[in-house]
Amino acid sequence: MALEGLSINLATLRGAWGFAEAVDGCLARGITAIAPWRDQVAAIGIEEAARIVRQNGLRVTGLCRGGMFPAPDAAGRQAAIDDNRRAIDEAVALNADCLVFVVGGLPAGSKDIAAARQMVEDGFHAILPHARSAGLKLAIEPLHPMYAADRACVNTLKQGLDLAGRLGSDVGVAIDVYHVWWDPDLAEGIARAGRESRIFAHHICDWLVPTRDLLLDRGMMGDGVIDLKSIRRMIEAAGYQGPQEVEIFSAENWWKKPGGEVLDTVIERFKTVC
Amino acid sequence: MALEGLSINLATLRGAWGFAEAVDGCLARGITAIAPWRDQVAAIGIEEAARIVRQNGLRVTGLCRGGMFPAPDAAGRQAAIDDNRRAIDEAVALNADCLVFVVGGLPAGSKDIAAARQMVEDGFHAILPHARSAGLKLAIEPLHPMYAADRACVNTLKQGLDLAGRLGSDVGVAIDVYHVWWDPDLAEGIARAGRESRIFAHHICDWLVPTRDLLLDRGMMGDGVIDLKSIRRMIEAAGYQGPQEVEIFSAENWWKKPGGEVLDTVIERFKTVC
Repeated sequence: MALEGLSINLATLRGAWGFAEAVDGCLARGITAIAPWRDQVAAIGIEEAARIVRQNGLRVTGLCRGGMFPAPDAAGRQAAIDDNRRAIDEAVALNADCLVFVVGGLPAGSKDIAAARQMVEDGFHAILPHARSAGLKLAIEPLHPMYAADRACVNTLKQGLDLAGRLGSDVGVAIDVYHVWWDPDLAEGIARAGRESRIFAHHICDWLVPTRDLLLDRGMMGDGVIDLKSIRRMIEAAGYQGPQEVEIFSAENWWKKPGGEVLDTVIERFKTVC
Repeated sequence: MALEGLSINLATLRGAWGFAEAVDGCLARGITAIAPWRDQVAAIGIEEAARIVRQNGLRVTGLCRGGMFPAPDAAGRQAAIDDNRRAIDEAVALNADCLVFVVGGLPAGSKDIAAARQMVEDGFHAILPHARSAGLKLAIEPLHPMYAADRACVNTLKQGLDLAGRLGSDVGVAIDVYHVWWDPDLAEGIARAGRESRIFAHHICDWLVPTRDLLLDRGMMGDGVIDLKSIRRMIEAAGYQGPQEVEIFSAENWWKKPGGEVLDTVIERFKTVC
């Protein structure tokens, strides 16, 4: 059973398991790549999480997440920068392939999305020296436009690549099918991302019809309308051969199921539709 | 009180009023431009609706909606084309400025969004002769990417303009702030739409934070995060001087209020934030 191409974003198992239980569940099934969230790491402690990663020879395909740069005032923006520096340290401690960025939306009370986008760019400039000194890659995750107000004002692959291009070769993108599948310029964006060597991660799940919640109703691969195989082919043709990382936010369905059942389903679907 | 720049999309009043009551409510407040939905017209009958429009000298800034072209089989696609021809006849009977198109999403069971987009283009080609013989303009409404699967697979202004460009000068776009406000290429798209004389309608409402339902939780102008004045300035700079058409889908809020209260609020907000 070849599961080298599969990574489990631990958000997928959030409903049932913490960091250590999730790792045990993955290892029991032959999965050796994970991507944790910072709160999951904090719950067990960064030293213990790093020890588990090291002792089990796990690959960490990304740490989620840095970002959330925009804030109404300078103090808030500085606090975000400081927190992002800590996220960089944690990603380095876990030997993560990259730190994944959900860049943040509009500051409270603002309607100025151009200003928010500038705050994001300024934030990256502020943390880049720290990331560079640690040799860590930063992956901007363009989020679906429905999150532009409250989670991320980088909303297309093109926009993410433009931003990465202004920042440097150690900044790339995390391509999550959920956020980009609809984009009429997707093929062009993926090809460009490959040419520029900026594909740092590839996340998968599915878009459900109907979608009952903007954030927490993402689908298991195969239960929705995303043509996962086609997108994967484009990403591989662009030169990215890394794992597909399964990230499913699903408060009312998968997060209510036992972790083992979720993982078994992920593996089954990964073999058939990814 | 100068309300020439205001049109009421009757979807906004759907919770309280049918066509005739909505028109009475508008006229009582000095509003003389409306945009009805086909089901609202059908409920009173197209002849009666046309008579009301004519007798009161109403401007119909658009009829909603044509479209929904994709279907799993040829018979389904033909049925959509036939229905769109009827929609054209109704728009002509109402002397509408344009027929507004929600083009349709993925056919049932499909994951092939490129094919759906082709079905849309084919559908337009099939109905264009009928529209042209009647001198009716067709307005493609790019819908927010969160509707790509189930309502419209034309999801950016650029994509809508590219499609319109392949169809002809009598095809343009309806620019609804709700669908496009997040777009990093919005200014560029509006300027292009103006240069190409393709801005046929301008819809307004607001994006609420949080948004509790993908379809029916749109906000009254001023209650959300969209910079309405800035977008309007861009649209006017691009050469469009037509009305701003207020279209608010709001099942749990505005559709539960009396129509007069909704209209009074629309007018108040129109004066202050649009």
